[in-house]
Amino acid sequence: MHKRQAKKSEHKAQYLTEQYKAVRQQTVAICQPLAVEDYAVQPRSEVSPPKWHLGHTSWLFEEVILNKHVPGYAYFNQYYCTLFNSYYKAIGAHTIQSERGQLSRPTVAEILAYREHVDRQMIVLLSSDMLSEGIFSLIETAIHHEQQHQELLYMDIKNILASNGINVAYSTDKPTTKHTARLTDSWLRFEEGLYVIGHANKTFSYDNERPQHQHYLYPFAIQQRLITNGEFLAFINDHAYEQAQYWLSLGWDWINQAKIKHPLYWRQIDGVWHEYTLYGLQPLDLNQPVAHISYFEADAFANWKQLRLPTEQELEVFLNTTDVIQPTGQLHPDDVSAANGQLWCWTRSQYSPYPRFKAFDGILNEYNGKFMCNQFVLKGSCIVTPRQHYRHSYRNFYLPHQRWMFSGIRLAKDID
Amino acid sequence: MHKRQAKKSEHKAQYLTEQYKAVRQQTVAICQPLAVEDYAVQPRSEVSPPKWHLGHTSWLFEEVILNKHVPGYAYFNQYYCTLFNSYYKAIGAHTIQSERGQLSRPTVAEILAYREHVDRQMIVLLSSDMLSEGIFSLIETAIHHEQQHQELLYMDIKNILASNGINVAYSTDKPTTKHTARLTDSWLRFEEGLYVIGHANKTFSYDNERPQHQHYLYPFAIQQRLITNGEFLAFINDHAYEQAQYWLSLGWDWINQAKIKHPLYWRQIDGVWHEYTLYGLQPLDLNQPVAHISYFEADAFANWKQLRLPTEQELEVFLNTTDVIQPTGQLHPDDVSAANGQLWCWTRSQYSPYPRFKAFDGILNEYNGKFMCNQFVLKGSCIVTPRQHYRHSYRNFYLPHQRWMFSGIRLAKDID
Amino acid sequence: MHKRQAKKSEHKAQYLTEQYKAVRQQTVAICQPLAVEDYAVQPRSEVSPPKWHLGHTSWLFEEVILNKHVPGYAYFNQYYCTLFNSYYKAIGAHTIQSERGQLSRPTVAEILAYREHVDRQMIVLLSSDMLSEGIFSLIETAIHHEQQHQELLYMDIKNILASNGINVAYSTDKPTTKHTARLTDSWLRFEEGLYVIGHANKTFSYDNERPQHQHYLYPFAIQQRLITNGEFLAFINDHAYEQAQYWLSLGWDWINQAKIKHPLYWRQIDGVWHEYTLYGLQPLDLNQPVAHISYFEADAFANWKQLRLPTEQELEVFLNTTDVIQPTGQLHPDDVSAANGQLWCWTRSQYSPYPRFKAFDGILNEYNGKFMCNQFVLKGSCIVTPRQHYRHSYRNFYLPHQRWMFSGIRLAKDID
Amino acid sequence: MHKRQAKKSEHKAQYLTEQYKAVRQQTVAICQPLAVEDYAVQPRSEVSPPKWHLGHTSWLFEEVILNKHVPGYAYFNQYYCTLFNSYYKAIGAHTIQSERGQLSRPTVAEILAYREHVDRQMIVLLSSDMLSEGIFSLIETAIHHEQQHQELLYMDIKNILASNGINVAYSTDKPTTKHTARLTDSWLRFEEGLYVIGHANKTFSYDNERPQHQHYLYPFAIQQRLITNGEFLAFINDHAYEQAQYWLSLGWDWINQAKIKHPLYWRQIDGVWHEYTLYGLQPLDLNQPVAHISYFEADAFANWKQLRLPTEQELEVFLNTTDVIQPTGQLHPDDVSAANGQLWCWTRSQYSPYPRFKAFDGILNEYNGKFMCNQFVLKGSCIVTPRQHYRHSYRNFYLPHQRWMFSGIRLAKDID
Repeated sequence: MHKRQAKKSEHKAQYLTEQYKAVRQQTVAICQPLAVEDYAVQPRSEVSPPKWHLGHTSWLFEEVILNKHVPGYAYFNQYYCTLFNSYYKAIGAHTIQSERGQLSRPTVAEILAYREHVDRQMIVLLSSDMLSEGIFSLIETAIHHEQQHQELLYMDIKNILASNGINVAYSTDKPTTKHTARLTDSWLRFEEGLYVIGHANKTFSYDNERPQHQHYLYPFAIQQRLITNGEFLAFINDHAYEQAQYWLSLGWDWINQAKIKHPLYWRQIDGVWHEYTLYGLQPLDLNQPVAHISYFEADAFANWKQLRLPTEQELEVFLNTTDVIQPTGQLHPDDVSAANGQLWCWTRSQYSPYPRFKAFDGILNEYNGKFMCNQFVLKGSCIVTPRQHYRHSYRNFYLPHQRWMFSGIRLAKDID
Repeated sequence: MHKRQAKKSEHKAQYLTEQYKAVRQQTVAICQPLAVEDYAVQPRSEVSPPKWHLGHTSWLFEEVILNKHVPGYAYFNQYYCTLFNSYYKAIGAHTIQSERGQLSRPTVAEILAYREHVDRQMIVLLSSDMLSEGIFSLIETAIHHEQQHQELLYMDIKNILASNGINVAYSTDKPTTKHTARLTDSWLRFEEGLYVIGHANKTFSYDNERPQHQHYLYPFAIQQRLITNGEFLAFINDHAYEQAQYWLSLGWDWINQAKIKHPLYWRQIDGVWHEYTLYGLQPLDLNQPVAHISYFEADAFANWKQLRLPTEQELEVFLNTTDVIQPTGQLHPDDVSAANGQLWCWTRSQYSPYPRFKAFDGILNEYNGKFMCNQFVLKGSCIVTPRQHYRHSYRNFYLPHQRWMFSGIRLAKDID
Repeated sequence: MHKRQAKKSEHKAQYLTEQYKAVRQQTVAICQPLAVEDYAVQPRSEVSPPKWHLGHTSWLFEEVILNKHVPGYAYFNQYYCTLFNSYYKAIGAHTIQSERGQLSRPTVAEILAYREHVDRQMIVLLSSDMLSEGIFSLIETAIHHEQQHQELLYMDIKNILASNGINVAYSTDKPTTKHTARLTDSWLRFEEGLYVIGHANKTFSYDNERPQHQHYLYPFAIQQRLITNGEFLAFINDHAYEQAQYWLSLGWDWINQAKIKHPLYWRQIDGVWHEYTLYGLQPLDLNQPVAHISYFEADAFANWKQLRLPTEQELEVFLNTTDVIQPTGQLHPDDVSAANGQLWCWTRSQYSPYPRFKAFDGILNEYNGKFMCNQFVLKGSCIVTPRQHYRHSYRNFYLPHQRWMFSGIRLAKDID
Repeated sequence: MHKRQAKKSEHKAQYLTEQYKAVRQQTVAICQPLAVEDYAVQPRSEVSPPKWHLGHTSWLFEEVILNKHVPGYAYFNQYYCTLFNSYYKAIGAHTIQSERGQLSRPTVAEILAYREHVDRQMIVLLSSDMLSEGIFSLIETAIHHEQQHQELLYMDIKNILASNGINVAYSTDKPTTKHTARLTDSWLRFEEGLYVIGHANKTFSYDNERPQHQHYLYPFAIQQRLITNGEFLAFINDHAYEQAQYWLSLGWDWINQAKIKHPLYWRQIDGVWHEYTLYGLQPLDLNQPVAHISYFEADAFANWKQLRLPTEQELEVFLNTTDVIQPTGQLHPDDVSAANGQLWCWTRSQYSPYPRFKAFDGILNEYNGKFMCNQFVLKGSCIVTPRQHYRHSYRNFYLPHQRWMFSGIRLAKDID
């Protein structure tokens, strides 16, 4: 290796070591307020027990980096290879997602020991001379992967605590509320033309954000605030959940079968609407953004408003005009006027490959591409997304009926 | 009305009367080879009994045209309003799709009497002075709707006859086989740039094909023939149905749960592959196009070939370079080199609204828009599509696991 | 063979030939009022299409008698061996019960040709010298089997016609109504002691009725009439369907999941209760016996009355005191005071083997024994049971939620 | 109150106080080896999380005794009334059984606090002058109820630990093994006649064991040992799981759908059979009794042996000839020759009311009667049944496919 390269590599290793330590500590810190029992349960099949997240994020480092790149590496526990594999068929067998909550073991303590083992081994690797560009790239991806699971942890913890009939708060802090004086009805207008979409690939991004490409858009406008609880309540009070005309056919079937009548965490107590938040149950604040709604509900709301959801390209063009909002530590969206960082906004775009999309090579090939079916794209990130994980080009995706993520509504319209 | 307008209206009425008569007779003619029992059953929930199609296509004329536009019109049978309504919630209640095959009544004879009643009333209306542009437009749409159901009849009849364990042929004709000398591996190349997509709206089209708009494409090539049974057999023989790497995640789940191992109508008899066709069971012709495959299988095949499916825009640009192939009366695809009219080709595009899409006004508002979720677009039409119903801009759509329609594979690739 | 034996055998052959002809004709006659479409459909999985019954009853003669005992016998159609086998695993594969209605072929005409073929062969056999006691016994059982299916045909036809939204009558006769002056509340009392239960086995019976044995009973009384529609309406009007206290745990789950609120064929039209019968829809006659109810409903009704259902032994002891009521040709129960022959009465006895029960030998071994699980016994036969098929010792059995058979309620109570 | 009565009441209070304390401590002691995570999960819907048992057994004392009989009693936590109600509809709403494992809260510590609260209140009540015969009776029943749940705890804990892919032992003791020299093939014979069945009602019993009554039995014999693992292995090796002839119809469906091929806790590891026990995974001991099998398997095994299962009356008559075996503290059955106390033995009797059965009065009315449908009776108790809870007349009952309880096989046969 040339000296300059060696120097560069050393800087990279140093940088990644710091990143690695910070992210790994943060994951554990997120779980700190939990009781042991909270780590183990799975109230619905899409939610994973927090202890599974702690194990799975460690497993990715072990399986993809340590096991592949450290000569003679021995697994901490052979059985964890199956248990903490999420869905990588090429790596081997994995437990069924909906059965993660059936397992009481390994215990939280055992999984924390596994994390510490992996951490020690990773630190050894990061200070060794075995590093290469390929390994750096895998480590970077695995760090981003863990950040992604930090957000999932907040989502899953919220669902787990909310499922208890008792009002359990994740945080005992008092939620702050933004002044909502800025709540306006202004729209940002965009002209017709070819726009550049996707990630420029000079820094880290996932495969599904690439390659950067041109896309033709017709004149449109994006609303400069999110839809509020008050507006969504008007939709409910207008009996829109009972009128098929506003709903996609599959959405209508879903709300009827699952008896959906309001956003996921709304509760009516003695006639007064409340919302379960990570701060516990709170009276519904009509000026805050409506959260935890499905694509079906977002689309029906837009139809009811005689407006529409933006395409993912439109929303990206909008986001590109905005600064990345720095996190406040808040655990509930409270700022309808923020351009990003409050709630993932549904787009009307089904999740498909970009022109000339190439999936990650090798072991992470299954990361994104195999899910490009029956999902819709959301953009703009949310209050519990780690900020280093934020990108305007980021493509989040969920099934149209899912709503346990921090999802909201930002509307668009055609203009002349 | 001005004289010229009156003249024009008279011509339109005459033209539509002829169209109406021809299409209505053709629907009944398609069913002519059936036994009465074949009209009544529903072997899977997505298939409708032929007698239901006979009733439903009549119901649309009655409900949308006669009942709305003929003063004092009385329903032939009040109960048919519910029974033959497919999914128009705005019109009223409807029977559940999967339960259509539970009903033995009305009998075929009773439904044919209903058809005759509607025909008499429609002919009276078409020769009356109650006609308007709005009514002409509804009649034209309802005629196209019936043509759509003619293709569904072929699909459903094929599935019904195939479900019988006995080899029952719909047609006793001998299937002709194209010389396949033209089977080549040539690709048609297209340059990067903005292309015009969608229907120009000077003649009839469905709402989902409009408005015509520009779309940016990167250099691509389309294969000038369809994938053959022989090629698909190689995919099977390479154990591709057992390797997760080729499959979308939902597709992998589907083939494992439903135990899918080959195209819908293939049967292995004493080690020899056969295919059920409307001509009955035939030895599998390796040079004919592979038919009746799902999106999941088409996508996996493309991955296995290290190629890809085209987007719907790419396929439309390709189709725009071709002539509409005139029908031969054949009931099974036999020409891999035909540019269209053999098999609906799967695209990798999920079925979404075009920019500035507006659903039909009024009673037919639910025709297309509410299905824009979790479906993929197919283009190019098939051997049993009525030719007046063919358009390059036509967007057909099905769920990714469905395959009882005449679907096939045409591949695409990126080029420099 | 000795002369006397030969004579006896000849008489037996003659007797069975007459029986055979009569029963076979009667089966076809029961279907005579049907439209072809009515023969083909299956509105719920427990109902079989009438054409399947026509085939299955012929298949038993072919498979168990002709194929086993006529040298060189060739099947009419090899495929029917699978298609018309109901559940005899020892004989070979069979189509799944719930999929019988998916098959349009063989047609009714083809199945009638199959029947005629079997009839010709059976008549040849019955006039041959190949007969033996063993064959006589199989023929007798197969004739009783066909009588059993005659009742099933009435049940299934009623369900098929009722499933059509249209009011279709099986019979256009006017239903006669018994004078109900005899409607009393008298109870027949029985003393404590050992009673003889089961069939004496001198004439034909099924294996499950044997052997005759002693059973100890405590003093009890049986009500000398059936429960009426009027009494059952009082149960409904007292909101008993909404009160868990009256219901078995599984019954409560069932009525809530299936939204059961009244007997199977009751319909409320503009506030007036009607009942669908084989004579079409009729206003509910409050003095007629309540029919088509499940064990769950019968048991809940008895609890509500603070009485109980009889055990099967109690009901048999009661029936043994009564004459067999001769059939009137009626197709709907109209006589609450008849001791038997109106409706199968639910007992609280789960269907279990009698002491020293031995299943039929050989090919019919699976006839009864393998169903002795999770079913309840009904006794007393119904209006559409062929009278040669009636026995006091007869044990009918159904799952506790089923109610498409002609089932009713006769109550019992403990006495001192 | 007379002095003598007062004295008697005092003795009763003292006795029950001791019983109460011992049983309540024992429940907590059973859970002592668990990790906190083990208390929270529910690997299958019929299994309850141990922490739920801890809460539910306390709830019964609170709801049925404290709340009803202590003036001014305030619930420890209003929400627990719903959460820890199992199925008593008359008392109010209850959480769905299959969703108990979705709840992380209340925590184990909170539930133990609830237990202590209830214990304090119960001790106060038991030393008060508010006691009556009715209250004594309820306390006695609730104590027996808790003993029933002690056995359920062992069953559920075993299932929870076994569901973890890792071999986790409940007890680190070494399992002792009985000398099996006594393994014989002798049968105990019983003569024909009237036998007395059921509980004499001088000491505690459940309502379903009463009243004592006469039942007529034919000559029979009961095998004086349980069926062994070795015998059951021969059944497997004879491919009996693949032959329909041995199985009830519903049993055959079950083994095929659930892919059942061996007893619940058997595992084949590198070709060697092992069994998961509360002592962890052990090599299969062929001389020990086969455990954890369903009614379907027990019945099929008996058919394969050309023998049969006993009726519940036969087994009770047999048990009445035996002494109650005192517990050894063993956690796995190891004595095939023991007459009782090893494994609950399946009977061929479906669970039905005894003649003149009367359900408990009042609040516990739903305890047994509403489950008398689709279950089979087991008798003789098992290794983890508390001995004060043992009675020859005890009627245990489970659905025919269930097998997570300690169930085994004792055969019967008809004799002359």
